[in-house]
Amino acid sequence: MSEQQHATTDDTDVTSEKLVELAKRRGYFFQSSGAYGGVGGFYTFGPQGAALKGNVEDAWRDRFAVAEGNMEIDAPTIMPEPVFEASGHLEGFDDMLVECSECGASHRADHIVEDNTEYEDAESLPIPEVEEIVAEYELVCPACGAGLAGQAVETFNLMFGTNIGPGDSDPGYLRPETAQGIFVEFPRLKEYARNQLPFGVTQIGRAYRNEISPRRSIIRTREFTQAELEYFVDPEDDEPDLEAVADVAVTLYPASEQNAEDGSEIETTIGEAVEEGIIGDEWVAYFLGVAKPWYESVGVDMDRFRFRQHLSGERAHYAADCWDAESEVDGNWIEMAGFAYRGDYDLSKHEEYSDDRFTIFKQYDEPKTVERATVDPDMSYLGPEFGGAAQDVVDELEALAARDREAFEGDTVEIDLEGETHEIPVEKTGFSVDEETIAGEHITPHVVEPSFGVDRLVYTVLHHAYREDEVDGEERTYLELEPEVAPTFVGVFPLQNDDDLEAVADEIVADLRAAGLSVTYDDSGNIGRRYRRQDEVGTPFCVTVDYETVEDEETTVTVRERDTTDQKRIAVDELAETLSAIRDGDLAFEEL
Amino acid sequence: MSEQQHATTDDTDVTSEKLVELAKRRGYFFQSSGAYGGVGGFYTFGPQGAALKGNVEDAWRDRFAVAEGNMEIDAPTIMPEPVFEASGHLEGFDDMLVECSECGASHRADHIVEDNTEYEDAESLPIPEVEEIVAEYELVCPACGAGLAGQAVETFNLMFGTNIGPGDSDPGYLRPETAQGIFVEFPRLKEYARNQLPFGVTQIGRAYRNEISPRRSIIRTREFTQAELEYFVDPEDDEPDLEAVADVAVTLYPASEQNAEDGSEIETTIGEAVEEGIIGDEWVAYFLGVAKPWYESVGVDMDRFRFRQHLSGERAHYAADCWDAESEVDGNWIEMAGFAYRGDYDLSKHEEYSDDRFTIFKQYDEPKTVERATVDPDMSYLGPEFGGAAQDVVDELEALAARDREAFEGDTVEIDLEGETHEIPVEKTGFSVDEETIAGEHITPHVVEPSFGVDRLVYTVLHHAYREDEVDGEERTYLELEPEVAPTFVGVFPLQNDDDLEAVADEIVADLRAAGLSVTYDDSGNIGRRYRRQDEVGTPFCVTVDYETVEDEETTVTVRERDTTDQKRIAVDELAETLSAIRDGDLAFEEL
Repeated sequence: MSEQQHATTDDTDVTSEKLVELAKRRGYFFQSSGAYGGVGGFYTFGPQGAALKGNVEDAWRDRFAVAEGNMEIDAPTIMPEPVFEASGHLEGFDDMLVECSECGASHRADHIVEDNTEYEDAESLPIPEVEEIVAEYELVCPACGAGLAGQAVETFNLMFGTNIGPGDSDPGYLRPETAQGIFVEFPRLKEYARNQLPFGVTQIGRAYRNEISPRRSIIRTREFTQAELEYFVDPEDDEPDLEAVADVAVTLYPASEQNAEDGSEIETTIGEAVEEGIIGDEWVAYFLGVAKPWYESVGVDMDRFRFRQHLSGERAHYAADCWDAESEVDGNWIEMAGFAYRGDYDLSKHEEYSDDRFTIFKQYDEPKTVERATVDPDMSYLGPEFGGAAQDVVDELEALAARDREAFEGDTVEIDLEGETHEIPVEKTGFSVDEETIAGEHITPHVVEPSFGVDRLVYTVLHHAYREDEVDGEERTYLELEPEVAPTFVGVFPLQNDDDLEAVADEIVADLRAAGLSVTYDDSGNIGRRYRRQDEVGTPFCVTVDYETVEDEETTVTVRERDTTDQKRIAVDELAETLSAIRDGDLAFEEL
Repeated sequence: MSEQQHATTDDTDVTSEKLVELAKRRGYFFQSSGAYGGVGGFYTFGPQGAALKGNVEDAWRDRFAVAEGNMEIDAPTIMPEPVFEASGHLEGFDDMLVECSECGASHRADHIVEDNTEYEDAESLPIPEVEEIVAEYELVCPACGAGLAGQAVETFNLMFGTNIGPGDSDPGYLRPETAQGIFVEFPRLKEYARNQLPFGVTQIGRAYRNEISPRRSIIRTREFTQAELEYFVDPEDDEPDLEAVADVAVTLYPASEQNAEDGSEIETTIGEAVEEGIIGDEWVAYFLGVAKPWYESVGVDMDRFRFRQHLSGERAHYAADCWDAESEVDGNWIEMAGFAYRGDYDLSKHEEYSDDRFTIFKQYDEPKTVERATVDPDMSYLGPEFGGAAQDVVDELEALAARDREAFEGDTVEIDLEGETHEIPVEKTGFSVDEETIAGEHITPHVVEPSFGVDRLVYTVLHHAYREDEVDGEERTYLELEPEVAPTFVGVFPLQNDDDLEAVADEIVADLRAAGLSVTYDDSGNIGRRYRRQDEVGTPFCVTVDYETVEDEETTVTVRERDTTDQKRIAVDELAETLSAIRDGDLAFEEL
């Protein structure tokens, strides 16, 4: 179910506060419906945030769908109740709720316990024990300070419910994960994959969790975006291309180290970690190896990044192995993705609950010849002998032949019928062993699931890119965003409001856009303010058209680099080519 | 509210049936959760459909956000109740529901009336009249045939409701249009636009309508994708660049022609239509002019496309003018987009209902000097005279001074206080008229809203691209999709399963992908079947690597064009460049 792990404290240091302020001021994100007082857990991405988020999604699509040859689908966010009966969400997707009898505020009981006692994983405790801890420690309501001892702790289902059509006969839920939209369509998706394993299906879209107490900006929200890959494999025959990622260096925090008194993170490679059995499943290892450089490419600081293995108590019972990608933000580790080997759990459940088949026909390389024992009983003997029970005898004989053909080796065979043993002459059973050729079998594929949270990644990328320095004696804030994800790659400014300068700037904007670069034009305020504005939104380069541009014989402009604030003069007719080369990593600004 | 107009009959001809079958078989779209019997009004886009839909969304973004210089945002789909109290959706976003007393099925009463009587716009009739028509015409339940006369017709709110957090104290709704996510954030968005009108904000995202009877595949669903632009203008000073679209030829179906006995569509240009007053609002005209060539570019057949003006009864009371973009599908016209001039309705409503300001400060070109009449009453006179009512007298005097300064021209001034008239000496009021300099004023911007339905456009594009012909004596089905939106631009095939051929094919795939083309590799089945598969998903070109490729000195491949099935041999090292040139429209296949 890839539940998102929360950091256990609510401490935010000054960087997060500054980031959230910048995010609102510059249009990255802000709490929604502020005009109506806002609602916890809902955020709007402003123009910069929507662009950054879109770029991150595109980068994910390129790597996990296109480059891996997987299919992307787009399913509805509302799904009918039977889907969640099968998936287990209706029964078990709960949090512990405690309500304050004084002020009526609702809280997560496990959070109150974790924040105020030495218990670290209260979520995994039984409810009566949590109630006892609340009483024993005399824990109080975080909102009003009233004692919570004696208040019932209840389960609260985290799915948002609604009704489909008039009346309430067709309950529906907003999906708590995009994954179910893939699993439930497996019978069709396998056709698009031409019934060949392995194949992968991705989806980028909204998911919803009705958190009791959403908190920490866009890290724990009630509506968020997931990018999930469900990779369907034949557990016997399919193997990942481990070689391709064997040399990827990773920081791992295995369960054994988390449990050890002086345990610590391990620096290793994917190849070594598999060899040494630290990562148990090769498919999980493969996707960790794909994910690590991808996270780096979108701007996650690798000194504040690790893969942490789930402890046995955290893991869903069906998950053989599960690792989270975690980033450090203000001293807390937050989950950005989960990588789980889920076995056949999901498809088996839908096979069990629905009318469709969630298997795939696996053709053998060569048809197999198998021996099959059958019976063809003599009814003219069984009929008179057993009367109305004759058919039961036939069923028993068939089952016995399939189970234990040696039972037919003597003259008689013994069967049990409602507690009584009967002897039947073997010659009356029509027992025979025949050879049969079969082309293959129906198998239930296993699922490997890399599940990414987009909002938390966006938060991490911004947080890890946040910088403060001093330029010309003045404090400066800037975002050191990777060009691949920055909302704007280049800002273009005419130095002053002057028709000649503006005309050249307009042409440059058109040229750069034609070259596929994302461009912002800005002619308002003095040039220093415009640089500052682009620094704060993380634009890697700015181009200024000044009087030298229009007066000199060789038309040049000033190109300024965000991080160093270094400036160089570049010929206008080389600008698009030069900036494209820098964007593609083929050229460095300092080489100009 | 940009409600989607429905076509009034449910006739589908054979093309729609074939298209829906192809869509399911090839992975364009299919009804969701089929394993659980499906739920009306929810569709999943398969791999081809998700790609086509994504391409259409990108094309919309390029034209309506990037090229127009508008901002794109990404807001939550769940919004709190007060938003919809303000927008009017809570009160008025209803359909007419009639329930069959025999079988319990729910139906839209207006649809039953329209399908079985001569009434064409039953939605706009009052409920008692609809009940009368049902009785008079003895209309029956479409599900079981039982009579519906005497059954109450009730209003049914089309928003999906849910609860935010535990309990039901915070109701929320799935947004029925993406627009509210923009309007409600106007106080922040105007800051990002640096308080300068005009500016536009776009959003592409899900919207939800709990239709009583969803129907016609993805044309009327309960969850769908909108691409909306809210363009905020100063109604006095801002004017669109009409010149840029004046020459765009359009087919218009104005209200006057719809009302006329022998009315018909008009072939004209945007410029002429504005001059002749056919399109009343210039902003609406501008966006129609932008939309028409855009629709053409993504593959809508211009012979089955028109702009239809809303009749006065269809139009929301606040909308000054509204036109729909309509496409013809199986002889029915369906709404794909609405273009409305909404005045200050949306922002005024939110200003009224919320605590925030939905205005913008409009600076005058020159500060204005205005005369302002004020009072400064002598409390030592009013106090003893009026006691506790003295402050009310002050308020009355202030209001009167602002309203009617002539009242202060005599020796005394008359005011009304709780029905009684009092005379007050003017000298005790401190009345004076002073000059004041003001820099500008707070105005409520007007909104122009081009609102696009993405699913209906995807359906139209597929329908208009559907072709059947005969190739080598065999029937063929193909989709003549525009390269810009086709899920795959080029399919690459090794002729046979042969290591040499596959190696070359792999290299070609990598080359073409590096050139930014979307590529599908296929090595399964005979070459004819592979061509057929790509024809059916609408892939414009296929490249086949055969033995000539690997044996000849000059390495060439066969390139086949989808529509004509013509084949040409092209050198491998010119392939990426040639296909890119064709994709960009700089080269035609027949010129090769």
